[in-house]
Amino acid sequence: MRVSQFFLSTLKEAPAEAELISHKLMLRAGLIKRLGSGLYTWMPLGLRVLRKIEHIIREEMNRSGALELMMPAIQPAELWQETGRWEVFGPQMLKIQDRHQHDYCFGPTHEEVIADIARREIKSYRQLPLNFYQIQTKFRDEIRPRFGVMRAREFMMKDAYSFHVDLASLEQTYQRMHDTYSRIFSRIGLNFRAVAADTGAMGGSSSHEFHVLAESGEDAIAFCPTSDYAANIELATTMPRGNTRLEPSGAMQKIATPDQKSCPEVAEFLGVPLEQTLKTLAVTANDQFYLLLLRGDHQLNETKVRKIPFLANFELASAEQIIAEIACPPGYLGPVTAKAKIVADKAVLEMSNFVCGANEAGYHLTQVNFGRNLPVPELVFDIRNVVAGDLSPDGKGILEICRGIEVGHIFQLRTKYAEKMQATYLDESGQTKVMEMGCYGIGVSRIVAAAIEQNHDAQGIIFPLSIAPFQLSIIPINYHKSDMIRSEADKLYQACLETGIDVLLDDREERPGVMFADQELIGIPHRLVIGERGLKEGLVEYRGRRDEAPRMLPLKESIAFITQQLAGY
Amino acid sequence: MRVSQFFLSTLKEAPAEAELISHKLMLRAGLIKRLGSGLYTWMPLGLRVLRKIEHIIREEMNRSGALELMMPAIQPAELWQETGRWEVFGPQMLKIQDRHQHDYCFGPTHEEVIADIARREIKSYRQLPLNFYQIQTKFRDEIRPRFGVMRAREFMMKDAYSFHVDLASLEQTYQRMHDTYSRIFSRIGLNFRAVAADTGAMGGSSSHEFHVLAESGEDAIAFCPTSDYAANIELATTMPRGNTRLEPSGAMQKIATPDQKSCPEVAEFLGVPLEQTLKTLAVTANDQFYLLLLRGDHQLNETKVRKIPFLANFELASAEQIIAEIACPPGYLGPVTAKAKIVADKAVLEMSNFVCGANEAGYHLTQVNFGRNLPVPELVFDIRNVVAGDLSPDGKGILEICRGIEVGHIFQLRTKYAEKMQATYLDESGQTKVMEMGCYGIGVSRIVAAAIEQNHDAQGIIFPLSIAPFQLSIIPINYHKSDMIRSEADKLYQACLETGIDVLLDDREERPGVMFADQELIGIPHRLVIGERGLKEGLVEYRGRRDEAPRMLPLKESIAFITQQLAGY
Repeated sequence: MRVSQFFLSTLKEAPAEAELISHKLMLRAGLIKRLGSGLYTWMPLGLRVLRKIEHIIREEMNRSGALELMMPAIQPAELWQETGRWEVFGPQMLKIQDRHQHDYCFGPTHEEVIADIARREIKSYRQLPLNFYQIQTKFRDEIRPRFGVMRAREFMMKDAYSFHVDLASLEQTYQRMHDTYSRIFSRIGLNFRAVAADTGAMGGSSSHEFHVLAESGEDAIAFCPTSDYAANIELATTMPRGNTRLEPSGAMQKIATPDQKSCPEVAEFLGVPLEQTLKTLAVTANDQFYLLLLRGDHQLNETKVRKIPFLANFELASAEQIIAEIACPPGYLGPVTAKAKIVADKAVLEMSNFVCGANEAGYHLTQVNFGRNLPVPELVFDIRNVVAGDLSPDGKGILEICRGIEVGHIFQLRTKYAEKMQATYLDESGQTKVMEMGCYGIGVSRIVAAAIEQNHDAQGIIFPLSIAPFQLSIIPINYHKSDMIRSEADKLYQACLETGIDVLLDDREERPGVMFADQELIGIPHRLVIGERGLKEGLVEYRGRRDEAPRMLPLKESIAFITQQLAGY
Repeated sequence: MRVSQFFLSTLKEAPAEAELISHKLMLRAGLIKRLGSGLYTWMPLGLRVLRKIEHIIREEMNRSGALELMMPAIQPAELWQETGRWEVFGPQMLKIQDRHQHDYCFGPTHEEVIADIARREIKSYRQLPLNFYQIQTKFRDEIRPRFGVMRAREFMMKDAYSFHVDLASLEQTYQRMHDTYSRIFSRIGLNFRAVAADTGAMGGSSSHEFHVLAESGEDAIAFCPTSDYAANIELATTMPRGNTRLEPSGAMQKIATPDQKSCPEVAEFLGVPLEQTLKTLAVTANDQFYLLLLRGDHQLNETKVRKIPFLANFELASAEQIIAEIACPPGYLGPVTAKAKIVADKAVLEMSNFVCGANEAGYHLTQVNFGRNLPVPELVFDIRNVVAGDLSPDGKGILEICRGIEVGHIFQLRTKYAEKMQATYLDESGQTKVMEMGCYGIGVSRIVAAAIEQNHDAQGIIFPLSIAPFQLSIIPINYHKSDMIRSEADKLYQACLETGIDVLLDDREERPGVMFADQELIGIPHRLVIGERGLKEGLVEYRGRRDEAPRMLPLKESIAFITQQLAGY
């Protein structure tokens, strides 16, 4: 492609509304243009990237045996009413009425539609398993769309849905999708991690998220660098260190801590490590009052608390409730002397000589010890997020925490949808059985942003070769002034096309600096510069997007050199 | 692809709601499944056809120099309010409110969005011309969706929009799109015709429709078989034959024609040719009463009437108005003795000795002649549709009428949208000018139905090779019982794949009749049958989908033979 026949539209500065680096760079490079809140046009340059990602996904999905189809974006309400999700899905679902006042939605996902197809089309166990997928525009009415295509309202998604006679077959396809996703993200060239995840609102049993690792990621992931273990920190199980409590080092004391309410404040005020403080949280559940105990540097994990049967519907206690129960304002609570049910996190049991609230405004207790100043808690659970330094749940190392951008999610839905929609088949003995179901999503457009979050520098985007809008940029100096330059540049360009190199020839009448800046901003991985001085010696200048400096190559060998670079990137 | 790993789902009978043959066959072949009114899922088999059409369109659009982008499906109301189309477009446009009660629509077309991009991105004449296109899901809320994907609500469209400094540039791109569309429909293998068309609600000047010729087509097209001329019958100009009126053959007579009101009734009652009768239509415009005269076998063309300035807002007169003006009920009107303004179609001037209403209930006049019984009309216009047998407007032959399915439409929009949205550029002298604009649509999903309307027989679909879901079907007899058959079929299948033949191997445990019927129904152009008897002599049976009878081929030569067929189809 010649730039003169293409549409480049780069910006020096990103619009003020962009916060995330990928959002800024996508706008500056002209990959996307904003149409409205959470709505973006994919400009020709950006669409080339998106299509390359689509192509990789399609190839790998086909290789896995999945069959591509295309369901309507607009879905009748009736199907969603069958599963009860018409009401449950909430305002993220864009609801629509047609001219006859019939209810529809712009599909945020397609479990209902595909289950409807399955129940009408699949009669016998002989037809199973089946795995259908589509690559399609979806819409989710985010309350606050932001970060460009990272959290847009209209976006491109690959969604797949599999149907099975039993769990064993579902597990087999689930594993195949796990492998397929790994191949897809590897081929794209992303640093990613498959992470055990909560099944959340989608229901079902097993679930994995695929995260592109990047500091700006919204999700915190606990992983073990010495094993395969990775999980969303909300889901990762904490492991007791197994440390026994130390002997009391001195008598418990009540110390004035005026206006020091949080653990970090108290720790600093008293000059003790934060891990030496105890966090006491007051909650209520079923009209019962509880104090939850955590080490001062740990965070409560609400999901874990809700899995404790008697705390399933817990709420944080109000200041009024706390004063009524403990006669003490929040900030000075502690388990000693409190007449409340105590629920302790497992890590608390290993604490000794710790600091906690005195249940008296402006005072804390120090040198507190279980068994001496208060009973050892009986209700002990895992109710916190893991932190870096925790033992890995697989026992194979020490956890680290990183941040990730979710680009894929696979679920074993089991029979949740199939049962409600009566998606059944006849088994070998002629009996009617409910199908097992899996679903598998990839945020196609989001991958572009995630890849940029992971691959950029001060000059702009550094696209992985597999999804770069062009593989090679040819920049001739004085293309419009020098016949020799123009002729050689055109020849090289033509030779690239014939070799199958995806090449962009910058034939604009622009200063070299502008052309270099554009090539770097839009992230073309390889660059050849044709200048008069080099050409006289038969040389061109090559620079890889990540290279420290350019180097000179014989013009005659440049195609072979680039071909080698493309193969071995 | 092996049928066992694919998803075939054919039906013996089409669902009752399908009227059109393409709709019936698409449902029977399992290309599509209905989700709701005007909403269809493209099943894996149908999607293969759609994707092949998409691929041809994309290749040819790229070859023409157009640049692919992708605009959002959801569009903010504000843009449509700028052009006034938010109100004008009518209930075909699906309007939507998001969670913040902001107005949007599911884009039925994208003139506003692209003009918004153009006005923000195009600054200088140096950037022009530009032609952007997308292949995208559109939605039009048809009042009565029918005929399957032919008139669906959600459908796939290729829409392109070009921008220019002047009309000459627009005309150049318009011609290039005309040529590109011809190449696209030719490559797909359709019998089509480019037809001059009315610009209608889209506005602008020149416009052509591309029609696939088929008896079931909704549009009537006048064409000249001895020249290039073709036009929608609403647009085709009628040409006077140039016949002079005959001398009166007898005196005018008033004849009782009880209950004979329409021209055909009167012609039959009196035993005269329909062409000998005169049709008199009463209309009003601007409080003035008119009688429009047409030959009895001709049809009024309202579009043409509205182009006559004083009839621009005409309406058919009510029975009350007619009685008030002529003192005669409808059905017996005529120009003789009527005190009304007369507007005659050009063909009427060539009539003599004709029959018309007597302006008296139950009576008609015969042997009526201009110049004798009434004055020669002064207001003479072309106000009828052309009919077969008319002279071609290009003077190069006699018109015929055929029916067509519109699959493409190109428009010179000129500055209609650009002016309202202030899409301007700076010309060479630094002056601000409004861009000229063209738009170019193809109904991608509709092409599948149109191709089937044009290519089918009693057994089912006969897909053109270029868009067939598979090029070749291999049907082994007793695949599951005979090791020899299975081994040879597998070998042949593998060899096809390696040669790049898009092949479907029917490895089901089905009766041969079922497999043959499926291959014919889904319209695979070529078929090889492997049976034991033939195999013993090293032969396989070949049959082209349109062949009268099968023939035997040496198995060894079958790949070469098929390759030849694919190249020369």
